[in-house]
Amino acid sequence: MAKIFCLADVCMVPIGTNSASVSDFVALIEAKIRASPLKSTLHSAGTTIEGPWDEVMGLIGEVHEYAHSKGIVRIQTDIRVGTRTDKHQTAQDKVDKVLKKLEEQK
Amino acid sequence: MAKIFCLADVCMVPIGTNSASVSDFVALIEAKIRASPLKSTLHSAGTTIEGPWDEVMGLIGEVHEYAHSKGIVRIQTDIRVGTRTDKHQTAQDKVDKVLKKLEEQK
Amino acid sequence: MAKIFCLADVCMVPIGTNSASVSDFVALIEAKIRASPLKSTLHSAGTTIEGPWDEVMGLIGEVHEYAHSKGIVRIQTDIRVGTRTDKHQTAQDKVDKVLKKLEEQK
Amino acid sequence: MAKIFCLADVCMVPIGTNSASVSDFVALIEAKIRASPLKSTLHSAGTTIEGPWDEVMGLIGEVHEYAHSKGIVRIQTDIRVGTRTDKHQTAQDKVDKVLKKLEEQK
Repeated sequence: MAKIFCLADVCMVPIGTNSASVSDFVALIEAKIRASPLKSTLHSAGTTIEGPWDEVMGLIGEVHEYAHSKGIVRIQTDIRVGTRTDKHQTAQDKVDKVLKKLEEQK
Repeated sequence: MAKIFCLADVCMVPIGTNSASVSDFVALIEAKIRASPLKSTLHSAGTTIEGPWDEVMGLIGEVHEYAHSKGIVRIQTDIRVGTRTDKHQTAQDKVDKVLKKLEEQK
Repeated sequence: MAKIFCLADVCMVPIGTNSASVSDFVALIEAKIRASPLKSTLHSAGTTIEGPWDEVMGLIGEVHEYAHSKGIVRIQTDIRVGTRTDKHQTAQDKVDKVLKKLEEQK
Repeated sequence: MAKIFCLADVCMVPIGTNSASVSDFVALIEAKIRASPLKSTLHSAGTTIEGPWDEVMGLIGEVHEYAHSKGIVRIQTDIRVGTRTDKHQTAQDKVDKVLKKLEEQK
């Protein structure tokens, strides 16, 4: 069991769906992610989920199983996940810090 | 040479930088990306760049070389890149479509 | 909790390590992975781990926590993970099937 | 244009193919990759390609375009790509170094 706080950015792709459109699939899994108590942020290339490792990874696995139960036979997912011990940092903190530095450069 | 339009979501990590903070590095590369004519969108886990394949990938390579020239010895990057032939779709189009479907589900 | 069988290909990068070499880090985490009962395969861009979702993801989280306990302050990991419901397929099965088809093409 | 040497590990997924099996697709693109002069290594979660940035990324783009020409409407690819300025290192060098350190730990 791993309890460390993590930021996990998740991009899920359904395989063998007979359509090049994935928005129905993404809406399906995004609704499932939003139904969890974990904080998440949607962007055009995935969704970032924040929380303790086991809860975040458990949620992603449950979303796989949920999509399978809805008829998706195969799913390929890319997860970028970071952990650190020097400080607590949210997804929004990361963006704010970079935007502030970009502003200072001007 | 590949000219197909692509959406590329890029997460760059500097290695051997002596600090667990990467915001200076991200501000450095983000400024370089924004100086290009290609459309890009920053989020907490990367930056999405849109355009013809060779221009997008060329830009990412130039950003690597630029960061090296600024003293970063090693860089590891994750790129999620998609292409399709059925229609043209921007990063914002993708988000809008999913948000609309989420709204309709309610 | 998610029990579905998965193939997870893991690429871990230490941040702020003061050295561009990551082989000590990779040997550290690879030893930890190999000490688990899960099947794994090392390649030049990561390690593929096979097993039930919670065990595989739990192991990766434990490896993060283990590396932190050894002084690595920040870790960024990319995981490519696939699940399917139509059949059971190991990492070796996937390679064998592609190699066989390549052979047949000749 | 970027000329720096890189190691790029590529995982391509076809979308909307009507079948959960991707081995035909992988054999198709693997044959295309092997027809190039660049060194590559297949593993269960992708293929590692080595060479100058523009040639490697150009090849991956050409493979996308080639697969589209064969009827694949949409492709989602994950690329892990690394560059460094301190030394030249091949994919095999990376594996050998880690295996040697694992051996020394025993």
